Amino acid sequence: MDTYIALLLSKLQVLSTSDHASVVSMNLFVALLCACIVVGHLLEENRWMNESITALLIGLCTGVVILLVSGGKSSHLLVFSEDLFFIYLLPPIIFNAGFQVKKKQFFRNFITIMLFGAVGTLISCCIISIGAIKSFQKIDIGPLDIGDYLAIGAIFAATDSVCTLQVLNQDETPLLYSLVFGEGVVNDATSVVLFNAIQSFDLTNTNPRIAWQFFCSFLYLFLTSTMLGVVTGLLSAYIIKKLYFGRHSTDREFALMMLMAYLSYMLAELFYLSGILTVFFCGIVMSHYTWHNVTESSRVTTKHAFATMSFVAEIFIFLYVGMDALDIEKWRFVSDSPGTSVAVSSILLALVMVGRAAFVFPLSFLSNLSKKSPTEKIGFKQQIVIWWAGLMRGAVSMALAYNKFTSLGHTHLRGNAIMITSTITVVLFSTMVFGLMTKPLIRFLLPHPKPQISSDPTTPKSVTVPLLGENQDSLDDLGGHEVPRPSSIRALLTTPTHTVHYYWRKFDDAFMRPVFGGRGFVPFVPGSPTERSSHNQWQ
Amino acid sequence: MDTYIALLLSKLQVLSTSDHASVVSMNLFVALLCACIVVGHLLEENRWMNESITALLIGLCTGVVILLVSGGKSSHLLVFSEDLFFIYLLPPIIFNAGFQVKKKQFFRNFITIMLFGAVGTLISCCIISIGAIKSFQKIDIGPLDIGDYLAIGAIFAATDSVCTLQVLNQDETPLLYSLVFGEGVVNDATSVVLFNAIQSFDLTNTNPRIAWQFFCSFLYLFLTSTMLGVVTGLLSAYIIKKLYFGRHSTDREFALMMLMAYLSYMLAELFYLSGILTVFFCGIVMSHYTWHNVTESSRVTTKHAFATMSFVAEIFIFLYVGMDALDIEKWRFVSDSPGTSVAVSSILLALVMVGRAAFVFPLSFLSNLSKKSPTEKIGFKQQIVIWWAGLMRGAVSMALAYNKFTSLGHTHLRGNAIMITSTITVVLFSTMVFGLMTKPLIRFLLPHPKPQISSDPTTPKSVTVPLLGENQDSLDDLGGHEVPRPSSIRALLTTPTHTVHYYWRKFDDAFMRPVFGGRGFVPFVPGSPTERSSHNQWQ
Repeated sequence: MDTYIALLLSKLQVLSTSDHASVVSMNLFVALLCACIVVGHLLEENRWMNESITALLIGLCTGVVILLVSGGKSSHLLVFSEDLFFIYLLPPIIFNAGFQVKKKQFFRNFITIMLFGAVGTLISCCIISIGAIKSFQKIDIGPLDIGDYLAIGAIFAATDSVCTLQVLNQDETPLLYSLVFGEGVVNDATSVVLFNAIQSFDLTNTNPRIAWQFFCSFLYLFLTSTMLGVVTGLLSAYIIKKLYFGRHSTDREFALMMLMAYLSYMLAELFYLSGILTVFFCGIVMSHYTWHNVTESSRVTTKHAFATMSFVAEIFIFLYVGMDALDIEKWRFVSDSPGTSVAVSSILLALVMVGRAAFVFPLSFLSNLSKKSPTEKIGFKQQIVIWWAGLMRGAVSMALAYNKFTSLGHTHLRGNAIMITSTITVVLFSTMVFGLMTKPLIRFLLPHPKPQISSDPTTPKSVTVPLLGENQDSLDDLGGHEVPRPSSIRALLTTPTHTVHYYWRKFDDAFMRPVFGGRGFVPFVPGSPTERSSHNQWQ
Repeated sequence: MDTYIALLLSKLQVLSTSDHASVVSMNLFVALLCACIVVGHLLEENRWMNESITALLIGLCTGVVILLVSGGKSSHLLVFSEDLFFIYLLPPIIFNAGFQVKKKQFFRNFITIMLFGAVGTLISCCIISIGAIKSFQKIDIGPLDIGDYLAIGAIFAATDSVCTLQVLNQDETPLLYSLVFGEGVVNDATSVVLFNAIQSFDLTNTNPRIAWQFFCSFLYLFLTSTMLGVVTGLLSAYIIKKLYFGRHSTDREFALMMLMAYLSYMLAELFYLSGILTVFFCGIVMSHYTWHNVTESSRVTTKHAFATMSFVAEIFIFLYVGMDALDIEKWRFVSDSPGTSVAVSSILLALVMVGRAAFVFPLSFLSNLSKKSPTEKIGFKQQIVIWWAGLMRGAVSMALAYNKFTSLGHTHLRGNAIMITSTITVVLFSTMVFGLMTKPLIRFLLPHPKPQISSDPTTPKSVTVPLLGENQDSLDDLGGHEVPRPSSIRALLTTPTHTVHYYWRKFDDAFMRPVFGGRGFVPFVPGSPTERSSHNQWQ
């Protein structure tokens, strides 16, 4: 009889007994996620708050409660796992950003975004590293070698894409959104290249050849990652257009889009590319082609389901970061010398601000030089917002700091403990203070942003139910209404992006859309009876 | 410089390097999921195949390829994890089944379902255990004690809800679907009660008091699990109705429904209840109340997104079971004596068939006795289909067998190895043969099933885009059109279920719907501008 009990016990173990502590944690965590959504909704009218700060505060409060209940032993609910973050939480957020980004804005500012993401991150990383070397030597924080300082530079140079999505509104400030968020995406590629460069090249004697190699490897990585995303997106469009023509099934279409988007991210990881870049471009291609090949209900479903997944992943991250901030083990070392920790955090915050200022203003100036039209130039007030909105450091910085300064989640060296607590302080302070101040700052500096709802009809964002205008002429797509036909080479030189748009549109209409579908190229059969019958089978 | 490399390496490790083998596995697995969807679509017109058999076959083929490529060392891509199955894959499947079940059919056959799920499973378990004891003693399969035999009974008595969903079509055979699937859901509660009973009571001397205690604890568990699901569902309806009234946001509504459904499952695990039962009833309540309180686009999104999650989880399970069937370690012991393994598998298959026949036909007879109308009785041909469609054993049996007969995934005892391989054989054989034969059998025995599309307007299943009929009279809900007002106690005795329906509808309209919303009780504002503005903020 014992073994029979053991069998049933073991089934129950999985369900409840052995991992009962983790079941309790999961319950609490899911309940807190619900609470964040409800509280976030209630605070929606508030001009200061946003969802991420709500989640961060709820996480902090929960951490305090757990700390008190457990008698100062623990503030953890879940163990922070980089796998969880990079493999499960980040992909849906970045994919959804690509899926719902305003493509017109993004590609019009492409060169500026590349400047910020590649050159800017390098500048910022150098300044923070050098600043840390100079200033930390005066403070007693234990032994840190040159590698640690360069690591600090890398940790605090990364713009957090997730934070950006929370504080900037794509409809209110489309230019700023595309610049700051685009920078965050390109930034990921930069860090992979940095790693490869340091590993492959001898950096002790820098000469033009090394710089050229560095540039080439960045270009290679950027292009291959982008191509992988584009190819996966096109493949999904092709499969859905060819196979599902005339007999659509929403469940399979949605499942295929979701799986292929995830596949693009995992393939990039497989080939040591930048998964963030890949899945971002996969999202863009899917919104341009695949999304128009699926049924009406699939369009509504994918649009909202991808947004919801991204939304839940974002809250999850901020809730976790807030909850993890009070981990008692890390603060034990620091409690002896609170002054040192405050000093280190303040220096780091100052360096982050200086490092970002050192590239935003010069690079904006450079970018403005290349633009003729005054409406396209980045004004000084907008530069301030770009500088400010990119100051936040979030879960990516946390993940990197944990990885560098802890071994298996435990902190034993004093210097490492101080770096961890300082990172937490910087993340909390920057997210709360800079995050809270962004909305009012934008309102103060740019008092009349024009909401651009529905200006880009190819973006899933602007869909309405019932879907109208599906069959209308698709030529106003990438800003077609304001693209005059260039009459000469002179036109190409004066309005390069517009001309590129024009020829892209011609190419798109002539070659891409007939093969991969897209708006206006897939005949729409309203209420097609095949949809229901094929759907019912796969409930 | 080393540590800087280490930092960046460690970031990459997470992304690619250290777990590169698991990244390869995940890529292959996601690609196979996509392949299953595409192949399943291509084979849709085939009268024999269904998605589960396709996934099983693709899994088997992949297993063979991996076995050949790795030189006979491994056929694994992912290690089978019961956590993965019970915590992540099963809840969405069961929730979606509850969300899209035909409530009218389900509640009309409630007593029969309870009979099958509770009494039937007990009968089946006893017969299989006794049969195994009698027959295995003649075969040399190593030492097995009485506990092992009872475990075999429990493993093979469980109807697999996931298989049922695949072979029976709710629209074509609603009665059979609700009976067989409902039995699978109630079955889960029975096994939890069995465990509690064996743990708490002294079963050596069975007397009426023990039986009464057993019955009471089953009733307690069934009622508390159901109540938990109902309460969570009502809570979600109340929160969405109260808070989001007039300013809906699809992302938050969908996220809240998803999280609260999952919370109900986890809460059941927390309180040692039946999570499957809880999440099933949560799905029913959510489809009756919550689903009608959300915006139009949320309705489309939730309906399809829940169905898609369930669909992907099902394919995932079958793909895995197919892939795992060739695990070389288990077959090594068996290769010495293939005859024994075949004998054990055949005996088990025969016992499964006899055990199921032993309760389906007598209990159907009992159930028919209580019904006056000949149209409500379960005909003999239908009994055969019920018997046949419940013969499949799937991932639940696999998970239980692994748990019982292996330690940490490795099989060392010969008897245990034979039991594992026999379980795999039974699962593969029953899914393929019984699964393949079910569609033709139904067509042969029940040649003219009437598809009942759109007969139950409260079920998300039947929604069309654009959503019509939202504001129509809600009184035809639970079969209201065929419920005559009972004029006396006599009516209550002759048509008990109809009368229960009538009073439930009165109660629902008078008390429940005004509080929790539901069809016709939430004013619908088409194209409400608040939806878009609030949505945009949370992209």
